[in-house]
Amino acid sequence: LTGVARTGRRAGSSGSREAILAAARDRFASEGYDGATVRGIAAAAGVDPALVRHYFGDKEHLFVAALELPIDPSEFVPRIMADAPDGLGLRLAQFFLETWDRADTPFVALLRSVTTNERAAAMMREFISREVLGQIAAKLELPDPQLRAALAGSQLVGVALMRYVIGLEPVASMDRDHLAQLIAPVLQRHLSPD
Amino acid sequence: LTGVARTGRRAGSSGSREAILAAARDRFASEGYDGATVRGIAAAAGVDPALVRHYFGDKEHLFVAALELPIDPSEFVPRIMADAPDGLGLRLAQFFLETWDRADTPFVALLRSVTTNERAAAMMREFISREVLGQIAAKLELPDPQLRAALAGSQLVGVALMRYVIGLEPVASMDRDHLAQLIAPVLQRHLSPD
Repeated sequence: LTGVARTGRRAGSSGSREAILAAARDRFASEGYDGATVRGIAAAAGVDPALVRHYFGDKEHLFVAALELPIDPSEFVPRIMADAPDGLGLRLAQFFLETWDRADTPFVALLRSVTTNERAAAMMREFISREVLGQIAAKLELPDPQLRAALAGSQLVGVALMRYVIGLEPVASMDRDHLAQLIAPVLQRHLSPD
Repeated sequence: LTGVARTGRRAGSSGSREAILAAARDRFASEGYDGATVRGIAAAAGVDPALVRHYFGDKEHLFVAALELPIDPSEFVPRIMADAPDGLGLRLAQFFLETWDRADTPFVALLRSVTTNERAAAMMREFISREVLGQIAAKLELPDPQLRAALAGSQLVGVALMRYVIGLEPVASMDRDHLAQLIAPVLQRHLSPD
């Protein structure tokens, strides 16, 4: 659960919170990220939409809480993109590896879900496209920003696949900062002018 | 099935071939790629080791046939590494994408197997480490060759995850040659002197 979700928790409210999260998981899976709405999730949970917004904020935060994602793009994207452009690759690599090295929900669980269930894949595709790549692309003042963000993302998920799923050495157990420094120039290249 | 496997097939022998392939899948899964032997697989299939070698050649080819992998490293590594070093990244990207765009066994099936089964992950880890990265590393006259090959491999599998599993646009449906040209410099960088 995210910090946002924890902040909203109060004594006696856990029934509603859990009902909202269960309804969110169900609706996101059946309608996709783009198709599901806060209003529809509230109705499915039998609560007022204002209560959903009170606990979780907007749809993006609700998705992160419902899927127990360790990364909340609405928090990390502005932070990563704020500082000097020439350090972007390294900040992105460090943040990504720190997050997954420490995550409660392992990367393999997320990947198992998208490889065994086409609806889960569609839901993640829409979320990543809109809230991760879309947000990064909106801040890149370069041609083909969505493609650039997707290529940088592909280097990151590929490293995660080697480190957390296949367990391939030396990537699996090498020092995090060293690994971040090795992939940073690749991310920088994808996200910089040619 | 690979070309090698097809070449070895004869009328009336399909029972033995199938028994060998089934025994191979079983032994590789239980003993790993490094632990399994042609002799042990032959015994489990109730045939002579010479028959296994006649049909499939060595352990590497038997693994490729048993798992119906679309890429046989003992064929592609020498081919990719043979020509000029400065074209290595592009040759690798083109070959990888051509193979998976056309593969009978989809990339998602392979990934589903390694994300749902720790033994499958261990088996693939040993195979990739020894027969793919190990073979590429042996031909790279650079420091840290296994790490360099693993980083190049991580960019490739990450693109495959985006293109074939998550279906993220524009990577999912873009022209193969264009995509190969975009990731070639990254592969080249990982596989070249600093």
